[in-house]
Amino acid sequence: MEPRPAAPGPCPGDSRVAAAAAAAPASSLNPAEARAEPGRRAPSVAAVLPAGGSGERMGVPTPKQFCPILERPLISYTLQALERVSWIKDIVVAVTGENMEAMKGIIQKYKHQRISLVEAGVTRHRSIFNGLRALAEDQPNSKLSKPEVVIIHDAVRPFVEEDVLLKVVTAAKEHGAAGAVRPLVSTVISPSADGCLDHSLERARHRASEMPQAFLFGVIYEAYQQCSDYDLEFGTECLQLALKYGHINAKLVEGSPDLWKVTYKRDLYAAESIIKERISQHICIIMDTKEDKNHVGHHLEEILKNELNHVEVTSGALCPAGRDLKQIILEQCYNYVCVNVLSSDFEETQRLLNMLEESNLSILYPVVVISVYFLDYKSVHFDQKMENLMQIREYAKEVRKRNILLCGLLIYYPQDEQKLQASLREGAAIITTLIKERNSGLVGQLLIA
Amino acid sequence: MEPRPAAPGPCPGDSRVAAAAAAAPASSLNPAEARAEPGRRAPSVAAVLPAGGSGERMGVPTPKQFCPILERPLISYTLQALERVSWIKDIVVAVTGENMEAMKGIIQKYKHQRISLVEAGVTRHRSIFNGLRALAEDQPNSKLSKPEVVIIHDAVRPFVEEDVLLKVVTAAKEHGAAGAVRPLVSTVISPSADGCLDHSLERARHRASEMPQAFLFGVIYEAYQQCSDYDLEFGTECLQLALKYGHINAKLVEGSPDLWKVTYKRDLYAAESIIKERISQHICIIMDTKEDKNHVGHHLEEILKNELNHVEVTSGALCPAGRDLKQIILEQCYNYVCVNVLSSDFEETQRLLNMLEESNLSILYPVVVISVYFLDYKSVHFDQKMENLMQIREYAKEVRKRNILLCGLLIYYPQDEQKLQASLREGAAIITTLIKERNSGLVGQLLIA
Repeated sequence: MEPRPAAPGPCPGDSRVAAAAAAAPASSLNPAEARAEPGRRAPSVAAVLPAGGSGERMGVPTPKQFCPILERPLISYTLQALERVSWIKDIVVAVTGENMEAMKGIIQKYKHQRISLVEAGVTRHRSIFNGLRALAEDQPNSKLSKPEVVIIHDAVRPFVEEDVLLKVVTAAKEHGAAGAVRPLVSTVISPSADGCLDHSLERARHRASEMPQAFLFGVIYEAYQQCSDYDLEFGTECLQLALKYGHINAKLVEGSPDLWKVTYKRDLYAAESIIKERISQHICIIMDTKEDKNHVGHHLEEILKNELNHVEVTSGALCPAGRDLKQIILEQCYNYVCVNVLSSDFEETQRLLNMLEESNLSILYPVVVISVYFLDYKSVHFDQKMENLMQIREYAKEVRKRNILLCGLLIYYPQDEQKLQASLREGAAIITTLIKERNSGLVGQLLIA
Repeated sequence: MEPRPAAPGPCPGDSRVAAAAAAAPASSLNPAEARAEPGRRAPSVAAVLPAGGSGERMGVPTPKQFCPILERPLISYTLQALERVSWIKDIVVAVTGENMEAMKGIIQKYKHQRISLVEAGVTRHRSIFNGLRALAEDQPNSKLSKPEVVIIHDAVRPFVEEDVLLKVVTAAKEHGAAGAVRPLVSTVISPSADGCLDHSLERARHRASEMPQAFLFGVIYEAYQQCSDYDLEFGTECLQLALKYGHINAKLVEGSPDLWKVTYKRDLYAAESIIKERISQHICIIMDTKEDKNHVGHHLEEILKNELNHVEVTSGALCPAGRDLKQIILEQCYNYVCVNVLSSDFEETQRLLNMLEESNLSILYPVVVISVYFLDYKSVHFDQKMENLMQIREYAKEVRKRNILLCGLLIYYPQDEQKLQASLREGAAIITTLIKERNSGLVGQLLIA
């Protein structure tokens, strides 16, 4: 089963957000507490991410860890997933000299924290070894300290959850080594020298070894120090090194399907769809709450709730103090429907946009804002008012620079109740489409329901 | 490397299309010719598709082969891929009794041909066995004839190309059995009884066994007749049966990454994106070719050609005889930009829509039609003309029923050349977005560039 979509991580640059996230149950997990042995010291944990790959299987010139998803490089999503876990003290990323400056730019732009960069080696194993060396404190001027347990993860597995990280760390502390595994999707076979089937392996008796893995630092560091050039050049599996050189049979932990490795172009498509789906799970409808409960804005809210029954639809107010809305922004809602009840200008929308810009919410994901107007446009001619609304194009261009996708939506508001319901449903369908697609190509449009 | 996107298959219900497809090089491949032994008889080939799975790994109640992609069930794409290959004489699909009527409905709706249905067994092997029995001519009233070579493929691998089908059939004729393989993405490990690592397999020495596979009919049918209940219940690999009971070491054929099996929800997302990308590779711009070469419509065409340099942009004319356009429709172009040069009504668009409806083109994929108008809307008031254009909503609702997605696009047409270029670029960006997203939620909108 596909896991339930998780809330995206807190915006790491916003200390209020970090505080809110730390207060949430998921982030209060702790390797020591989880083992239900109160008083026992939690192990210090660091993570190493080899990110030196060239991505040749992708068929594109950009290494896959730097391929953009919603305009942000894949590796930034993976860093975000690790950063959310407060008990991971240091995250060491191994990148090639060629990509070092680009990586620094990514860390700065997306405000990643607790990241150290080391130079990647020519193979995955050499990159990991470089990362471990940086943690081993035998390097001069290192700001890093040697952890008790080290997580090894791939830069191209962005959907790793705290839960599985905790499981591998806990198991590593007990067994010395641990790794996530998954059932095989295809049967594995062994070919003969002439390219024919020699034998096939029983699927139920084998597992695919995935990431994350975790090790007692001493175990894996010693294994790397002992291992041969052949291992460093051609090996791929850290669990195998712990077995070969440390005589440790790693504990295997069943992982969820979302641990899969972004390998081919289709995996980028899949990752983009998953991310879009995750950030579309919460829609905030903003309207003047002093309004009559029977107001058409509430009807729209009801229809959205009914049609998107897996989506959380909440409503907030910009006034009096706008405290509600600040809370909703803090909870990382990436979708806003601003119902303009009293006016046909952009005052309310403008205030919302200002709040969003101040919050830094759109640093990590594009935020969709839909400014809704009600008008009996079939009885009135397209007039000055309509032209006013067209100004949304200019606002949209401006906020687009800050990753906010603004559209207008004019909903037909006839006297006839049945017709009104029909146009509200149409409006809800357009809102759903704009949020789902999250495509910057349509910003500034005034859509009509 | 991801393979180049292939043209989608011909519409099987349209005999003109079938003729055009048969004339194309890809479909003139033939198992005998390919072996470069002229005069040698081509083997008769049939295919068996087990489609009885419940799709429990997907986490959705619908079995994955029936999950919709662009509103069409996944299995229909796989049938389309096999149907395109003219030398596959029969396609036998095994479905559960529960899904038999739904499957018949799919065959009728999408005009699939050469399909026979048999009842699925409780396991994959039993379903395949049922399919083979239907081909073995020992069934009363069977319209099928026993083939020399049988292809076995999965209903949930929609992107199979003629090339790999030909390779496995040719190899099966020579070796008795053949199957597509891929490099392993993850290391495969063998766990011990207590859930720890026993050993890991060397990745380079193993392969993932994928589909399609092909067999001399006698070889695989005899293997199934001999094989044990245990094999039928717990086995998954046909190549293994050919080895165990027929003592045949199947030839392994390297497949492309697009042979992957749609297994998880993310795979459906990936498949949808791949299909959308494939049908967006050709845009036809329709305008009155008697027009001045410097007309703004040609500027728009140039910009689209420059910005979408991987996309084929052609132009066609509705008059005098509209023969050009008919040819373009026959070649399965799913994207039309109708530039309304002389009028602000829907006459030209209406004629295009009529031609599309007659062609049956939209049976397999949603067709995008964008009706473009040029207007200096900043100097004139929104007037009657604008309201005329809004009628596009009614047209759009009507053609939506026949899987045609119609939108309007009003491009700002100022006297200033530089401003005109800017609005043309904006128009091209909107066209690109509408084609890429292919979302029915925005049909009938009048977008503004």
